[in-house]
Amino acid sequence: MKLIASRDNATFKDLRDLAGDARRQRREGRALLDGPHLVGAALDHGLLPELVAVSESAAELPEVAALLARMPGVPALSLRDALFRELSELATPLGILARITVPPARPAGSTLGVPTFPVQGDCLLLDAVQDAGNVGTLLRTAAAAGVREVLLGSGCAGAWTPRVLRAAQGAHFALNIREGVDLAVFLREYRGVSVAAVAHDGIPLYELDCAAPTAWLFGNEGAGIAPELVAAARRRATIPLAPGSESLNVAAAAAVCLFEMRRQRIGRTI
Amino acid sequence: MKLIASRDNATFKDLRDLAGDARRQRREGRALLDGPHLVGAALDHGLLPELVAVSESAAELPEVAALLARMPGVPALSLRDALFRELSELATPLGILARITVPPARPAGSTLGVPTFPVQGDCLLLDAVQDAGNVGTLLRTAAAAGVREVLLGSGCAGAWTPRVLRAAQGAHFALNIREGVDLAVFLREYRGVSVAAVAHDGIPLYELDCAAPTAWLFGNEGAGIAPELVAAARRRATIPLAPGSESLNVAAAAAVCLFEMRRQRIGRTI
Repeated sequence: MKLIASRDNATFKDLRDLAGDARRQRREGRALLDGPHLVGAALDHGLLPELVAVSESAAELPEVAALLARMPGVPALSLRDALFRELSELATPLGILARITVPPARPAGSTLGVPTFPVQGDCLLLDAVQDAGNVGTLLRTAAAAGVREVLLGSGCAGAWTPRVLRAAQGAHFALNIREGVDLAVFLREYRGVSVAAVAHDGIPLYELDCAAPTAWLFGNEGAGIAPELVAAARRRATIPLAPGSESLNVAAAAAVCLFEMRRQRIGRTI
Repeated sequence: MKLIASRDNATFKDLRDLAGDARRQRREGRALLDGPHLVGAALDHGLLPELVAVSESAAELPEVAALLARMPGVPALSLRDALFRELSELATPLGILARITVPPARPAGSTLGVPTFPVQGDCLLLDAVQDAGNVGTLLRTAAAAGVREVLLGSGCAGAWTPRVLRAAQGAHFALNIREGVDLAVFLREYRGVSVAAVAHDGIPLYELDCAAPTAWLFGNEGAGIAPELVAAARRRATIPLAPGSESLNVAAAAAVCLFEMRRQRIGRTI
C-alpha cells in the first residue's frame, strides 16, 4: 500500500477538498464513509468503495486489516496520521475512510410517468427536516422498523453528508433513499395510505389502522409539515401526549409511529 | 433597564465566565436558559430566574418584552448585541438569556434510608448516555409520555447544560431530575417493575405488560447498559427490529418503549 507523507500529494489534496465541500460531494454523487462501522456496513451490502484511505498507525489494526482484505481490488492509500486527521470530522479519527459513489435509488414501479416513485410499499417522507442528526436517526429508525423506502423533500439535510451517515449507523445501505423529491407529486401518485404526523387534531395514533401500506410524513423541527403537504395526505395522525407537553422531537415521533405500525403488523399479546 | 456596553462590566464578565464553564455551573447549581422558549417554559412552571439578560436590539421585540413583563422583580440587563453574542452558544442568538438556580429534585417517598428516590411511580433511568442531544431528547420524550421522574447515573451528559436544555425544549421544568444517582442502589429499592432495554434476548416489547409502575433503564450509545445494572433489573425487554438491523438510537428506543407503555395505559382500539 502506498504511503502518502506529503500534503502536496494530488490524491490526498483531492480527498481533502472533497471532504470539505458538501456541494461537490452532491454534484459528483460521492460520499465519504468515516470509520470501520460504516465501511463494513457498505461492504455487507455489496457496495464497494472507489478508494480507501487508512491512517498509517491504524493500517495494522485487525479491524482495519480485515476490512482491507474484503476489498482487494479497491485502490488503497496509507496516510501519515496528521494527514488522515485532516480528512475526518471526528475528534478521534477511527483510522479508515472510504470514498463511494452514492448508490442510485432503485426504481420501484411506475405510474403516470413518475417511474422512480415507490407507489406501493411502506415509505418514510421527510419535509424540510434540517438537523443532520435527526435525519440520520430517522433513517436508522426506518430501517429498524422495516420501512425501506425513504423520500426526502426540499429543505432536508443531505442524506449522504458525514453527520447523517454517522447518525444512521449504516442504515443507508439497507434503504432506498431519494433526495429532492417533490412530495406533493408523490402524495398524489401513492396508492397506499398516506399519513401526515401532526401535533394536534389528527386521529389518535393508537386508533389508526396500519394494516395497509403506509407513507408516513414528518416535517420540519420548528414549523412541522408544510400545510399543502398535510392537505395532500389522506390521513392525519397525532401521538397522544401527556398533558402539558406540546410535541416530541421529530425522530422520536417517527420512532413511535413506525413502531406502532410494526407492532400492529407483527401481532401482539398485551 | 441598565444598558451594558463594556466588556469590563463585572456582571457581564461573570455571566460570560459562567456560560463558558460547565464545571462552575454544576458546582454552583446554576444554569443558563438561552432563548425565549426555555425562559417561557421556566416561567410557566413557576421558576423565576435570578437574572435576565437581553440583547439591545431584542429588548423591544414583543416576545421578549412579554417575558420581561412576567418577571418584574428579576434583575434585568440590556447588553450590546456584540456582548450578548458572547453569552450564547447559538449561531443566531435569540435575544434573551436567563440565569437560574437549578431546581432541587423533590423528595418522593422514603424507604430504607434512601429518602430521595421515587420508589413508586414510573421512572426513566439513564446509564452513561453521553450525547447531550440524546439526553435532551430523552427528557423531552419522558415528559411527553407522562414519566415525571428521571434519574441519571454516572457518565451521563449534564442535564442542565445548554445543549441538553435546548434539545429538551423545556421538558426540564415538567420533570423531577436527579443526577449522579447510584442506579444499582435505586434498582434494589424500587418497588415497581424495573425493565432494562437490551438489544437482544429480552422479552419482546409487545409481550411486556406495562400496567404496573415501571422504571425503564437505557444505556450508553455504544456499550449499552452496564452488565451489573442489567442484572439488577427485574426484567429485560427487546424491541423487535426488522431483520438486518442491530439497534436503534437510544432516544428512539426509549420513545418506542415509553409510548408502548402509554398506549397500554390509555387503551387502544386497533
